[in-house]
Amino acid sequence: MQAQALLNPLIGGPGSKGWPHQAAPVRRSDIAAKGWNVLRGDLPLPLAVIRQDALAGNLRWMQQFARDQGVELAPHGKTTMSPQLFDAQLRAGAWGITFANVTQARLGLASGVRRALIANQVAAATDLDGIVESLLDHPGARLLFLVDSLAQLELIEAWFHARGDAPVALEVLLEIGLEGGRSGCRSHGLALALARRVRSSVALRLVGIECYEGLWAKGRNGEDSALVQGLLQRVTEVARECDDEQLFQADELLVSAGGSAIFDLVAPRLKPALSKPVRGVLRSGCYVTHDHGNYKRYMAAMDTRLGCGHGLQAALQVWAMVQSVPEPGLAILTAGKRDVSYDIEMPIPAEWCWRGQAKPQAPPPSWKVSTMNDQHAYLRFDGDAAPQVGDRVGLGISHPCTTFDKWRWMAVVDEHYDVVDAIVTYF
Amino acid sequence: MQAQALLNPLIGGPGSKGWPHQAAPVRRSDIAAKGWNVLRGDLPLPLAVIRQDALAGNLRWMQQFARDQGVELAPHGKTTMSPQLFDAQLRAGAWGITFANVTQARLGLASGVRRALIANQVAAATDLDGIVESLLDHPGARLLFLVDSLAQLELIEAWFHARGDAPVALEVLLEIGLEGGRSGCRSHGLALALARRVRSSVALRLVGIECYEGLWAKGRNGEDSALVQGLLQRVTEVARECDDEQLFQADELLVSAGGSAIFDLVAPRLKPALSKPVRGVLRSGCYVTHDHGNYKRYMAAMDTRLGCGHGLQAALQVWAMVQSVPEPGLAILTAGKRDVSYDIEMPIPAEWCWRGQAKPQAPPPSWKVSTMNDQHAYLRFDGDAAPQVGDRVGLGISHPCTTFDKWRWMAVVDEHYDVVDAIVTYF
Repeated sequence: MQAQALLNPLIGGPGSKGWPHQAAPVRRSDIAAKGWNVLRGDLPLPLAVIRQDALAGNLRWMQQFARDQGVELAPHGKTTMSPQLFDAQLRAGAWGITFANVTQARLGLASGVRRALIANQVAAATDLDGIVESLLDHPGARLLFLVDSLAQLELIEAWFHARGDAPVALEVLLEIGLEGGRSGCRSHGLALALARRVRSSVALRLVGIECYEGLWAKGRNGEDSALVQGLLQRVTEVARECDDEQLFQADELLVSAGGSAIFDLVAPRLKPALSKPVRGVLRSGCYVTHDHGNYKRYMAAMDTRLGCGHGLQAALQVWAMVQSVPEPGLAILTAGKRDVSYDIEMPIPAEWCWRGQAKPQAPPPSWKVSTMNDQHAYLRFDGDAAPQVGDRVGLGISHPCTTFDKWRWMAVVDEHYDVVDAIVTYF
Repeated sequence: MQAQALLNPLIGGPGSKGWPHQAAPVRRSDIAAKGWNVLRGDLPLPLAVIRQDALAGNLRWMQQFARDQGVELAPHGKTTMSPQLFDAQLRAGAWGITFANVTQARLGLASGVRRALIANQVAAATDLDGIVESLLDHPGARLLFLVDSLAQLELIEAWFHARGDAPVALEVLLEIGLEGGRSGCRSHGLALALARRVRSSVALRLVGIECYEGLWAKGRNGEDSALVQGLLQRVTEVARECDDEQLFQADELLVSAGGSAIFDLVAPRLKPALSKPVRGVLRSGCYVTHDHGNYKRYMAAMDTRLGCGHGLQAALQVWAMVQSVPEPGLAILTAGKRDVSYDIEMPIPAEWCWRGQAKPQAPPPSWKVSTMNDQHAYLRFDGDAAPQVGDRVGLGISHPCTTFDKWRWMAVVDEHYDVVDAIVTYF
């Protein structure tokens, strides 16, 4: 019941940006029938849109890639935080969905996810309570998280003993970290010591091992291969020793890694030979919409390794209007830091639709967004192909996560920019 | 009715970050009775909190400042996009609220704002329709916007004639821009030509003049004084010529400027002598919570001009937990780019609360956030005063706008971090 409400919510209402001003809220399943078209001006700009064809292609290609590699996909749900997209990923064949914290994972289970992996440490009592209650609400579902320190384990045990009634030991994965990286055990010795303490704890059950390489990828084959080889070698060594010492408490062991940058290097290394069956779990999340910048560059490097083109297409755009052309070479757009990613680079003009027209064209190559304020983008251009006040510009994004978190809903559009569906987000 | 619903909404529900996992949604007016305390761990982290005492002081000080200067306050609502804070600003004496676009202004009118100034160009038919409908829904309310080009005027006139039934001419202000700045007429000649065309248009009525200096402030007295003097001199000259030519169509004229950086320089220049009464309107928005970085520095410069301390205090913090201390000198916090501003600088550790304790202390001066990922902050520290897993850190922010837009609700807390109220946002 709750899952259905989360998958088919009411969208719109006062203050809902991009929503037609006079339109009442509409259930997701009814939005296509509204007959709205983005380029005809039926919706106020700025507006984030997902191209349905590109989205469908990305879901298919990535799932097939995982299948071909013999690993499972548990895409990182923090990218989109959208029940509609979790559902699409699961229908495409994903084994589960990854999350960054308990609030996110609880939303996942509430919206129909049955295997939720929190790729993060959990230690606060209120969050541990939240995991227990969510598992009680969703019998048979799994909700796993990471451990990387004895200090964390001590907090969990203190919570467990204070609570008294935790129904089962919680499932955890041991995180192996990179020196100079984020979280995760830096040494083999610490990892083993922690695994042994988990084995002797009644609060937790060790069911696998995890690492994360994505943020340290360079987009250069040699360095990235060495990074993945070194990290996954450490993962394998810890996993083997845990296996030898019988520290795992599961019939099937999980080995998980994988951001969205170099997952082709990671996937073949997720199934070390252990005494029990191993399920390799890839967590890439950004493939779902891909992008026009950061991941486009990483995938170009991946193409040289795959020996064939990858199958991902940029699916997410933010449309804005030219509100002013106040100086030669400068146009001001009605979208800013509240609407589109700026943490890696400025948005990339991808489409240009003249005022009064409904058919976009490629913008001239000179067009660049030089900066953004909260609500404005500064579009710079050379020469004759000047945008006019009232023109619309489709901005490509880099990267997806920090564009998704700026929208409570997004329109899903076909190739004519007819609104054929919608998604909502929870940030 | 609608205003009451927007001011006293249900807060919480699945996926609502910072909301207690098992708590049902609660009406704003009922939240204080829950008895929640942030430092006791009643709410999951990360959580954005507003200190009630600092907020109340900021509302009072800024309104008194405007009063002392003989100008009105129409604080920029885009900072917070929170009906509860608009209401608090109006109750403190604000003349109106400023917005960045039609969606925002419509939310303002729906939540009880009676004078809404869109400090931006509006030109799309759907947005112009949205203004007309909103004015019809709220008889007697005002909703003004800016014009800065003949191209914009032509679009508005085309809309007006196509629509046929617009009830009244829409009220606009002429925007004067800075060379190398954002929108606004760059030349006296263009401004006058546009004002004359507005005078002859049945679609629009010119009721004042506007500029914006805030983004170009340097925090250095000499340069900032010259900037404001030059820009407001141009505004005054255009206003006088429009007045001489009887291009204004109002009994009272509006002259508006003012970001949150150097409003003390702006305020005394907002009342040029014209043939009709002039209402100076200051639009500063960030004063409402102030901050720990960007505006703190600007206000230090303002103090040297005011000759006394300003009365603003940083009211907004984002609390996170230490989830891992994986290397000497590095702690990983459970808050990231989705939770706290990073567009001007990284967040500033402002409070430290040990695990198991509920009384915060000042963190050691060596503590710095060096970077953030989507969901994590990297806290660097020297020496002995190391944070422990389970400790909580209150992050000060810089600047407010890009922290507000990361939260759908925020807790309002007293000095003990008891939750005494809440606000919601619409981004």
